[in-house]
Parts: sequence; structure tokens; C-alpha cells
Amino acid sequence: MTDQTKAASGGDDLEPVVIFDTTLRDGEQCPGASMTFEEKLEVAELLDDMGVDIIEAGFPIASEGDFESVSEIARRSKNAVIAGLSRAAFNDIDRCAEAVKHAARPRIHTFISTSPIHMKHKLQKEPDAVLEAVIASVSRARSHVADVEWSAEDGTRTEFDFLCRCVEGAITAGATTINIPDTVGYSTPEEYTDLFLRVREAVPNSDKAVFSVHCHDDLGMAEANSLAGLKGGARQIECTINGIGERAGNAALEEIVMAIKTRPDVLPYRTNIDSTMLTRASKLVAAVTSFPVQYNKAIVGRNAFAHESGIHQDGMLKHTQTYEIMTPESVGVKETSLVMGKHSGRNAFREKLKELGYELGDNAFQDAFKRFKDLADRKKHVYDEDIEALVDEEIGNADDRIKVVSMTVVAGTGGPQKATLTMDIDGRVETKEATGNGPVDAIFNAIRALVPHEATLALYDVHAVTEGTDAQAEVSIRLEQGGREVSGRGADPDTLVASARAYVHALNKLQARSERMHAQTG
Amino acid sequence: MTDQTKAASGGDDLEPVVIFDTTLRDGEQCPGASMTFEEKLEVAELLDDMGVDIIEAGFPIASEGDFESVSEIARRSKNAVIAGLSRAAFNDIDRCAEAVKHAARPRIHTFISTSPIHMKHKLQKEPDAVLEAVIASVSRARSHVADVEWSAEDGTRTEFDFLCRCVEGAITAGATTINIPDTVGYSTPEEYTDLFLRVREAVPNSDKAVFSVHCHDDLGMAEANSLAGLKGGARQIECTINGIGERAGNAALEEIVMAIKTRPDVLPYRTNIDSTMLTRASKLVAAVTSFPVQYNKAIVGRNAFAHESGIHQDGMLKHTQTYEIMTPESVGVKETSLVMGKHSGRNAFREKLKELGYELGDNAFQDAFKRFKDLADRKKHVYDEDIEALVDEEIGNADDRIKVVSMTVVAGTGGPQKATLTMDIDGRVETKEATGNGPVDAIFNAIRALVPHEATLALYDVHAVTEGTDAQAEVSIRLEQGGREVSGRGADPDTLVASARAYVHALNKLQARSERMHAQTG
Repeated sequence: MTDQTKAASGGDDLEPVVIFDTTLRDGEQCPGASMTFEEKLEVAELLDDMGVDIIEAGFPIASEGDFESVSEIARRSKNAVIAGLSRAAFNDIDRCAEAVKHAARPRIHTFISTSPIHMKHKLQKEPDAVLEAVIASVSRARSHVADVEWSAEDGTRTEFDFLCRCVEGAITAGATTINIPDTVGYSTPEEYTDLFLRVREAVPNSDKAVFSVHCHDDLGMAEANSLAGLKGGARQIECTINGIGERAGNAALEEIVMAIKTRPDVLPYRTNIDSTMLTRASKLVAAVTSFPVQYNKAIVGRNAFAHESGIHQDGMLKHTQTYEIMTPESVGVKETSLVMGKHSGRNAFREKLKELGYELGDNAFQDAFKRFKDLADRKKHVYDEDIEALVDEEIGNADDRIKVVSMTVVAGTGGPQKATLTMDIDGRVETKEATGNGPVDAIFNAIRALVPHEATLALYDVHAVTEGTDAQAEVSIRLEQGGREVSGRGADPDTLVASARAYVHALNKLQARSERMHAQTG
Repeated sequence: MTDQTKAASGGDDLEPVVIFDTTLRDGEQCPGASMTFEEKLEVAELLDDMGVDIIEAGFPIASEGDFESVSEIARRSKNAVIAGLSRAAFNDIDRCAEAVKHAARPRIHTFISTSPIHMKHKLQKEPDAVLEAVIASVSRARSHVADVEWSAEDGTRTEFDFLCRCVEGAITAGATTINIPDTVGYSTPEEYTDLFLRVREAVPNSDKAVFSVHCHDDLGMAEANSLAGLKGGARQIECTINGIGERAGNAALEEIVMAIKTRPDVLPYRTNIDSTMLTRASKLVAAVTSFPVQYNKAIVGRNAFAHESGIHQDGMLKHTQTYEIMTPESVGVKETSLVMGKHSGRNAFREKLKELGYELGDNAFQDAFKRFKDLADRKKHVYDEDIEALVDEEIGNADDRIKVVSMTVVAGTGGPQKATLTMDIDGRVETKEATGNGPVDAIFNAIRALVPHEATLALYDVHAVTEGTDAQAEVSIRLEQGGREVSGRGADPDTLVASARAYVHALNKLQARSERMHAQTG
């Protein structure tokens, strides 16, 4: 087939498209997806390694934590441009500049709403005042950095002539990228192509900026709309890993990248993404947010390549291309492999970690190795996924003040269920016993007895890391306190131990946050 | 806005589009999604009530079970057309006719591959032989029923002139619906519009049939492609609840329906679907397949309307339409409501069940009521979701030969974990004790000691039905034996009890199936 020849030829005739990842901003701000400082750094590093052109690292004015993580991601950035988001106000923009300045290639992304409904109800401003704000905000951003992106929030519901005036003003003021988002996920592909064609045609200085798409999936068309924007002349796509984001989420980075890679005949573009890292990125983001990926999710769902599994297919598959338009290997799907046993030593474990993309500091490595040996004693087969779960938990728990020391549970249909729990709280070891409505409830009651707190449980989710009844259980938990949510996770062959660890992990995050808040207000 | 006025006006100027649901065929045949006979009937009933025009109930030649469920769904059908799938062979078609004949409005859906790669590697037939098969198979189907659909498998990768010859032949032979599927999820919206325009233009008798789209989501564009097909003149959409299906799945019914409903200005169509039943349908299909719906899935994900939740929004939301293009109520999202307490009686419980859409037979009702009272004793608040979980499990377990009687588990970090389990197996009550690598492993080992079997655990998943630490846990399990998978689920405030129930539920399905197979071969 001609398109495959074309792709194989290296695609010199393909136009480059910039991938702007907003997993850490639009993704992280959706209810329940909040990440810790360490988790954000880990995700940012993977995105940078994967070839993402621009990483939107956060919204610096939103909180001290956001500011710190954007700053640190900027400091550690390698190839990617690091962007921060800011509203049109000068203090927002200045704070954003302060955070991204450590990057080799910093960007300020400033936005304001331009649709009638947003201007009236959200901004309570007249159009002329909004246009003035556009020009002033972009100018202010340009006084800090050369790379400035401006977004017309709710762009697809904005009155056309006004949108053009704003875009022209932003470019004149120095914006180098113009983003027209479909903020409410309202557009269809044809409309979106048409909008970009018309704006680029109508705005006299439109050739001075790169145009960008940013689509939400409320009607299920975020990806098709994003690609349609390219046809209208856009050359930057804003997207997130697994398509996480506000409400129905953003366009999924992995779908965009693989559509472009698979169909160069009708999508004559190329990206810098190393597609073999997509599966790992998907797993990492699913783990740190505790957002499961549905089995039939395109590209990264566990069934996406299910015809490749050992499942009996009634002899239908005589040729893989019959049903396969891309290979599992091209997105980094690995065969689950038996890797390590209880006789594997430190060097082998360190090598395996490197192969899986982890580099741990000395203390973290020793802890991880100890837990690996413990796991290998208890579990027949230790798979890559087991090691990933173990290390991901290790990273998440690095600075915990509260730790589970030991636990005994008696449960069953007879009831009441009883848990005896020993925890280390700031170095002080204490034991309490509690009953509950089920063993998990009993454990959580024991934790509450040891560390009194107000938070309520908003989510409890368990899945097996690999197959078989001796698989490790990975538990995700979300705690809600005062309208904010934090997530925690824990992995162990014992579901109940994993549950305790996950709860304590979330509790540590809550405490760390309330300390940060006290520090800010104090 | 004009489109909202248009939608509100009743849409007399909107063209009707036929919704063809294949959750029970393309959805059910994907790895791990298999449903029991009872589950299929339950899903079919809901689809019929919801206004689905055509329900593809199964693939009758595939197995005795498929034949029986298609027959029974046909018998019970109310308004929907009941379709069965068949390959081009006469015995396939005759078997399909035998199954659908009980429906008030039966359809035979017959298909054959028309793409070069499929004809060569899968069929090993020359194009002329394929064309002959098309004509012969459609004629055979028409000898049984008046409503015949013909599909060109891998249609989007079929050579254009050959596709037109096949379509023309099928229509001449009596096909009333022509489906051109994007079997491998390869198409883009523009291509798909263009394909329908060109085929309808080139085929002389194309006005004698309804054209149909059938899209897969491998590149994330199933929904946009489906809607693009309408622009090319198609008037039937094949789709599934939650978008389940082979690999990355099919187009999601709920997204199709809500896109059409929300954007009549650019999608001037209407469907017969009662959109307020979409959420319930999504939950039912997620429950019977044990396929989780990702949080940010369009329309039916738990975050799809998350700006509606109580979560603190920094005063950003001054007007709901600012970020909302459809209301949660329009897709049947209900506020989680406190409904019943331990003093609620039989009548109140029956009323509540009716309100939730359940009608149980006497025995099932008594069992459900008993379990409700037991739950109300143990759980502070009983929500609609709790009752749904309880009744869904009740329905699934109706004919179980193996039951959990009682259970005691001792677990914790000390290990080894120990489970003592008493089960009722065909009326014989027995107790065994087992240890394991974690309490769940211990329980599963005890089950294996009581009921020896070969199956391995392919999936273990737990989530809380409602919020709070005393929430019921719903456990999903998938067992794999000899290349086939069955799923089971169990709900209980005690995760371990729910785990045992889910495992036993799956085990009952496995046994029922192996008995059916023995009956067939014996």
C-alpha cells in the first residue's frame, strides 16, 4: 500500500506538527486527577524523553504547589519547551514568568474568554475591554519571554469578527502561537477546519503565528476535530495522555500521534513523538491519577490489540494485516515477560529497572530491592508490571511521615470484621484495633483512630497487576477534604495490605498539603 | 442560539437516522465481554425500551448459546427489529433465519469480505467468486425474510469498482440495507463521507437500499466517521453501548445520539432514542461485561458532567451554559439519593425497584429484599446504586448451583493468610480451609479445594459502589479456561465476601457452559 511505503520512506514530504501536552495542566485540574510534586516531575520527564515539543507544566498562580512544580519541571527540562498557563491579569503573567524562567526554552501561555456567553457571565466585561486585555496581556508576557501563546477561551462559540480582531491584536502584541480552543467540546470536524481557514484568511498578520487546536471530547470528537484543525492550517495540537482533562477530557495524545503515523497518505504530517513510549506513558498517567483506562480505548486500552493475544480465534487469522493497521510494538506493547526470581541480585534488579526506564536514588533503590525480594519470596512469577507497580509506589511514598508497620485482620461472613494495625507516625510507633463493616472499613477505621482526620473516601478501586490468583493487587484511593481531592495507591499481593498502604499514601499527601497551606498563610 | 430553538421545536425538518445496536454481537464477541443468556435478555430489553431501532442479538451459527439467545430475544422483542448475523454460507443463513423468525420484525444480516487482503488471506477466493457469493447469500436470506442487510467486510479497504459491483449485486438480489464497514478502524471522516457519496452515485440502484455505517475506533475516530457517513447519505448507524467491541471497539451509541441531539444545526438528523436512558444502559453493560467506563468517557463517564458536582470551583461558574452544552438530566444522570433505610418495607422496596427499572419474579424479589434488609442493617446509607448492585447480582446468580454459605478469613502483614470457607454445592454443604498469598488468594484456593477446576484468573477488579468507607464493594472477576473467558461479579460491604461471590458466580457460568457443550456433543 502506498501510504505504508510513504511512512517507511521517512516522510520528508510530511509537514511537522508540534505536540503540546497539557496532561499536567488541563489533565491534572480535572476532579480527582491531582498529582503530587514528585509524580508531576516523573510525568514531565517521561514526556520530555518521549519527544513532546511543549509541556504545559501547570498554572503557576493557582497555588504554591503549582508554582513549585512548574519551576522544578522548567529547571529539569531537556529538549521540551516548558509552558505555564496564566489568565490575562499582570500578576498572573508575572508569576508564570517567574516559574518558567528556569527552562532553557520557556513559554507563557495566556488566555481570556472571547465568547458572548463567557464575556457576559464569567468575565462580566464588554468586548472592547476584552480586546484591550488581550493586547495588554500578550505585551506583558512578551516583556518576559520571546515565546508567547495566546488562547481565545471558548473560541468555537466566539463571534467571528470579534475573534479575528482579538487574534490580530494578539499577534501584533507579539503572540507567536494562537490557540483557538473548542473549550466546551461543541465543534464538528468540518466546522473546525472551516474556522481555521477563515480566521487565517481574514486576519492580515496570521502568517506571523503558529495556529493551535485544543479540543474537548464532550461529543466524542476531540481527536477528529484536532486533525481537522490541521487541515485548516493549524500546526500545533494540544492534547493529554489518555485524553484526561476537564469533563469528558481532551484529545488523547496517543490517538493523535498514531493517526498521523498510520495515515500519512491523508494526514501528510509528522510529529517528534517516539510512539514506542506511548504505552508506558499511558500506564504512568493512569497510575498517578488513579484514572483507569477503558479496555477498548484506542491505542492504549488492554484490548486495543487483543487479536494479538493467545485467545482462540477459530482459525480466522491467517495474516495479521487482515485486521491490523499498526503493530502492538509500534506503541510499545510488550509481551508480559517473566523477568526475575528470588535469586536475582542487586545488579540484575538495577539493570531491569533501567530497562523499564527507572533511575532510582540509593535509598529508594535499597527500599525497592528489599520489597522486590519480599515479593519474589511470596509470588511465583515476578513480571515487569509487578516491578513497575512496586517502584511506582516507592516513588510515591518517598517522603511519607505516616507508615504502616504491621496489620492483622479477621474477616468473613460472621462479622464484625476486626483490624489490628500498627503504624509509624513521625517516628512514634502505635497500635490500635477497630471493627468495621467489612475488613477494609475496619482497617480504615483503625487508621482514623491512629491519625484522626476529616477526609471522606471518594473512590476505592482495586485491580490485579498481572494475571493469576497470586497477582499483586494495586489499590487506588481518593480522599476528599474541604472540596479538594487527593489520590493514593498501594501495591501488595495482599489486597488488604495494599488498601492500608493506599489510604496512608493519600493521607500523607493530604497532610503535606495542609502543611504547605499553613506555611503560605502563616 | 438558533440550534437550541430548532431542537426544542421538535425537529420536524430533521431526517430520521436508524440506530442499529450491536452490543450483543460485535460488543459481546470481544475478548472478555461475554455475557450469559440472562444478561443478554436484560440488555436487549433495555435497548428495546430505549428506542433502539434494530438490535443485532448475536451470531446464531457461532454456538448453541448464541442461537438460543437470539431466538429468545426475538420472541420477547417489542418494537425493535431483531437482527442475526451470518456469513455467506447457506447453512449460516438458514440457522440465522431459524433464530430470528420469532421476532415481529426479523432481519438477516449477512456479510462477506470484499477487500483484496481479506479475499486473498481470509477467504482465499477470487473476486468473481465473492460476487457470486454476495448474490447467492442475499437471495437465500430474502427467501426467509423481507428485511435483509448485506455488509462488505473491510469495505473501506475494498477496491472501489469491485465494491460498487458487489453493492449493486446485493441490492438486485434483494438487500434492503447496505453496510460499508470500516472494519479495521482505518478511515478518516472526509474519506468516509466521500466513499458513501461516490458509491451511491456510481451504483445505479443505490436508491433502493438504506446505506449504513459501521466504524471501529482503532485511530479514535469511530464516532466522527459514523457522523461523516451520514453526510455521504448513510441513514443507519451501527454502534454499541460504551463503544465496546473488537480491539478498540465500535462507535459509542451514547456519543452518536447526543452529538445528533446537541448539534441539529450541523447534523440535521434525529433518532428514536430516549437519551435519558443512556446512563442506565451504560451502567448495565459495564456491569455485565465487567468492562469499566473511563472517568472522562464522553456522555457516560463519571467526570463527563463533573463541573456539576459539589467540587469547589473557585467561583468560576456563574452560569451553567458557560461550560455545559447538554444537561446531565438529558442523559439520565441522577443525583445520588438517599432512598431506603432498615425500616423500609416490602412495598417501598418494590416501588423503588420499579423506579429503577427492575421487575423481579417472586423468588428473586424475596431474595433481593432479604439481602436489602441485611445491607440496611450494616450500612448507614442505602443509595440507588447500592440497590442496583444488589439486584444486578441477584439476576446474575439466579440459577447458581454453587453458593457461598459462610466464610472466615485471617489476614495481615504477618502471613500466611488463611480462609475457612463453607459452600453449598448442588445442595451438599462442605467446609474447607486454605492458605494463600494474601486473603483473596486464600479464599480462591479454598474455592478450588471445594470445587476443583482448571480455570485461571484473568482479571480481578474491585470498586466501591458509592462513596464512604462503608460503601459496598463490587468485585469483577474473569476466569479463563481453554481459550474462553467468563466474567463474574459480586457485591457486598465486605470486599472479601464480594470477591468470593464474584469468583463463584464466574465458576457457575463456566460449569453451565461446559454442561451445555456436553449436551451438544453427547
